[in-house]
Amino acid sequence: MSLPMFTGLSAFPLTPLDEDGIDEGAFARLVARLAEAGVDSIAPLGSTGSYAYLQRTERARLTRLAVEAAQGVPVMVGIGALRTRDVLAHAHDAQAAGASAVLLAPVSYQLLTDDEVLSLYSDVTAELSVPLCVYDNPRTTQFAFSDDLHVAIAQLPHVRAIKLPGDGAAARIAGLRARVPESVALGVSGDWFAAEALRAGADVWFSVIGGLFPEPALAIARGEDVDLEPLWDLFRRYGGIRVVATAAVLRGFTGEPNLPRPLRPAPADEVGPVLDELGL
Amino acid sequence: MSLPMFTGLSAFPLTPLDEDGIDEGAFARLVARLAEAGVDSIAPLGSTGSYAYLQRTERARLTRLAVEAAQGVPVMVGIGALRTRDVLAHAHDAQAAGASAVLLAPVSYQLLTDDEVLSLYSDVTAELSVPLCVYDNPRTTQFAFSDDLHVAIAQLPHVRAIKLPGDGAAARIAGLRARVPESVALGVSGDWFAAEALRAGADVWFSVIGGLFPEPALAIARGEDVDLEPLWDLFRRYGGIRVVATAAVLRGFTGEPNLPRPLRPAPADEVGPVLDELGL
Repeated sequence: MSLPMFTGLSAFPLTPLDEDGIDEGAFARLVARLAEAGVDSIAPLGSTGSYAYLQRTERARLTRLAVEAAQGVPVMVGIGALRTRDVLAHAHDAQAAGASAVLLAPVSYQLLTDDEVLSLYSDVTAELSVPLCVYDNPRTTQFAFSDDLHVAIAQLPHVRAIKLPGDGAAARIAGLRARVPESVALGVSGDWFAAEALRAGADVWFSVIGGLFPEPALAIARGEDVDLEPLWDLFRRYGGIRVVATAAVLRGFTGEPNLPRPLRPAPADEVGPVLDELGL
Repeated sequence: MSLPMFTGLSAFPLTPLDEDGIDEGAFARLVARLAEAGVDSIAPLGSTGSYAYLQRTERARLTRLAVEAAQGVPVMVGIGALRTRDVLAHAHDAQAAGASAVLLAPVSYQLLTDDEVLSLYSDVTAELSVPLCVYDNPRTTQFAFSDDLHVAIAQLPHVRAIKLPGDGAAARIAGLRARVPESVALGVSGDWFAAEALRAGADVWFSVIGGLFPEPALAIARGEDVDLEPLWDLFRRYGGIRVVATAAVLRGFTGEPNLPRPLRPAPADEVGPVLDELGL
């Protein structure tokens, strides 16, 4: 059986920051709002939370703040880094700060081989005491997991979920379900693929939009028919993080800028009308 | 006119390290050996030097050691990082440590847009006082520079070289040469493309093999016909860094392991016979 935290909606909030630092107040309010909306888990320091751009001390501090603001809702944090050494340090910090689970992508500079990625998960799970979610995101890591590699990693201790890229997820789920332990949840990311993947049997949706607008995301996770196509079109053109960064400013959740340079938000004059049209 | 340091052979040594730290003695000996061989410039903290895997203090310290060991040969160091904030810090450290030039790749986690990359180079060159080499390496950064973007960046102050990916370099050089200032050198990486690109007019070869075996690389840079095809075949299969890591151990230049985990070296039983065959 999947852990309850790896069912339904896992919401990925932004980390509002600029070149001078992190807006911790705005960050905590974003997290608290997700808890109040009733999401199943909260994943600060995901890709949308800019984990890869933050220093160790920043990541540890944000985890502590998130656990506090989440009011008992399980918190999963990204521990990915280029070096195994640094991943282990982030894993230690995440557990010390009270995270309920960790999310690990094989972040790369040199392209990684299957053996290298397996060794990373093996080294990290050997030192964990909380559940781990495998983060399969070829777009940011340049590493594409084969089903065989997912099956091998799913045998490691503490592996309790796989976050699949949306593109192709619906088609992969039945095959993977038959090959990984029942205790390993299969989830989907890439928001515009979520409804289809949930219908195909995904246990959980790891959601960018759910990190800012939890209500429509919860409705989609419950199987309701909510059409956010104009938003998904922006996501595909600019990347989800740039769109929610702009939306967060337009709806007063954060100041601006709120992304680490050189990243820039999507144009407000394109995002604003879509939010209005969709009632977000 | 190209700067003398951006002509001929620019040699990229390894940074020998393991999970406990950096072998500074072996690093300094690798750099000194390149200076003694007569390379035109030395680029520690390139991709082969694992810059992306090192902390700020480690990078600053290695730059200082390299400048000392290089005995007056110009030293160029990689300053790339995911955040503009961190790139600026590395640029500051590199200059304070006596680097003659800096090498900047648009390292990414979220895929970058052309505007974001231009803003990165604009922000960094505004604070530089040494020459900058634009590092175009889509394989590690996931960002492919168009010729138009190279031309725009080449107008920025302090830009004095472009390191092109080997694949396609020979075909791009004439077109770029006509469009970028004469003071901007055009160079090639991807060792097995070097001879062809140099014949097509490249000013400089940014060389992985030159960082470990400078003599044959200097011969190739002078236009001599040196056939290293069995080595290039290993480079294509395992990546240059994994092959030179193994070669460095086999030839006694470093201990092992010498790469940051999860990276692993190429198999010694494949690299050894090729080194023997080629007399390296």
